[in-house]
Amino acid sequence: MQSQHTVRSYDDELKFLAHKIAEMGGHAERMVEQSVMAIVNADNALAQRVISDDLILDASEREIDDRAITIIAKRQPMAVDLREIIGAIRISSDLERVGDLGKNIAKRVAAVSDTRQSIKVYRGLQTLAELALTQLKDVLDAFASRSIQQINIVRDRDDEIDAMYTSLFRELLTYMMEDPRNISACTHLLFCAKNIERIGDHATNIAETVYYIVTGQQMPPDRPKEDMSHGVVVDEAKRA
Amino acid sequence: MQSQHTVRSYDDELKFLAHKIAEMGGHAERMVEQSVMAIVNADNALAQRVISDDLILDASEREIDDRAITIIAKRQPMAVDLREIIGAIRISSDLERVGDLGKNIAKRVAAVSDTRQSIKVYRGLQTLAELALTQLKDVLDAFASRSIQQINIVRDRDDEIDAMYTSLFRELLTYMMEDPRNISACTHLLFCAKNIERIGDHATNIAETVYYIVTGQQMPPDRPKEDMSHGVVVDEAKRA
Repeated sequence: MQSQHTVRSYDDELKFLAHKIAEMGGHAERMVEQSVMAIVNADNALAQRVISDDLILDASEREIDDRAITIIAKRQPMAVDLREIIGAIRISSDLERVGDLGKNIAKRVAAVSDTRQSIKVYRGLQTLAELALTQLKDVLDAFASRSIQQINIVRDRDDEIDAMYTSLFRELLTYMMEDPRNISACTHLLFCAKNIERIGDHATNIAETVYYIVTGQQMPPDRPKEDMSHGVVVDEAKRA
Repeated sequence: MQSQHTVRSYDDELKFLAHKIAEMGGHAERMVEQSVMAIVNADNALAQRVISDDLILDASEREIDDRAITIIAKRQPMAVDLREIIGAIRISSDLERVGDLGKNIAKRVAAVSDTRQSIKVYRGLQTLAELALTQLKDVLDAFASRSIQQINIVRDRDDEIDAMYTSLFRELLTYMMEDPRNISACTHLLFCAKNIERIGDHATNIAETVYYIVTGQQMPPDRPKEDMSHGVVVDEAKRA
């Protein structure tokens, strides 16, 4: 009985970590969704809620870290259990950063709502966010089911996010050149777009961690790829 | 003899992790230094070297992760040793990201060198980078000496970086408004500045990890603070 109890309790500890990760994932997704909604609708009250919600995510990360380390010290786990626990520490760190990115978007609401931009820009931002959030949902599903099937799909779709981000980057530069009154707001929107692109990168990190948990191997490096916006130059002279 | 050998070897394993972290730290610092030098001097060759150097950092992070997990599985470490190992995983992840930020700055060299900006902008960027690199050096020293004395100083100085970043942000927006031909280059410089500011954040993360390794406690949360650039609006109408 004693031993069964011990085993069940160890199992419960591992389940607790997985459950807490899923909870953090849902929370981070909601923060990002709402931050983009706040930008699009110039909704300062919603932005404030997102900003204060970030504290919950920070506390969850700390709790996962503490529990994970206690489990390692107490249970001296081997193989897949150890990977599971180390994986939980990594994933919670990625999700905490996703929340930070959502908070950062929310903080720009006031500066962006100062001037209204073309509806096309907000659409672009929303589509980018939808793609990034789909990635996040899919890797969290892959984590929940410990399935590596979806992982390569997630990786490939990261290219789409990068391409869309680069095109949005170019578009925003163009608006800035058309009218200097757009410069402040469009610069903040550029940072919002960059933040969303980075959420995609965190989804990719999580995918790599899930691969590691399931297989015990580091994921083989992908072909080098990332957003290509770093080379974008919109030439005022050539545009005229 | 057998046991002594085992203990010495365990100790060597822990030393290896600490040594590898120090090496990664030096490498990441160099990448950031050189990326800023490449921006300032429009040096594409140097930028290319920084970009390819990033592979070394990625490989080091993977090596630290693999070794750390092997040590946990083999040695079943307790208390401070376990914190040391988990700390190595966290710090190497921060240093890998610092390298990524350096690489990202280097990638913008071509787009920035398209037009030359005011010397003041490059000075601002250099000063910001010096501050961030000092932070990074100081936390790596704190890690090497397992000293928490310096950690609060590092935390306080992060405010300076944020203030300087916000002022550079404002300055760059102003240049963009003065002349639309500056928009592309200044936007990339804005992202460079943001990347440097984020290096300061990673130094703060590392400081928190060192605190945790030494004390076994999570560092008490600091007063909320960060860069205030998210609220910056430079109003074209008011400037006239």
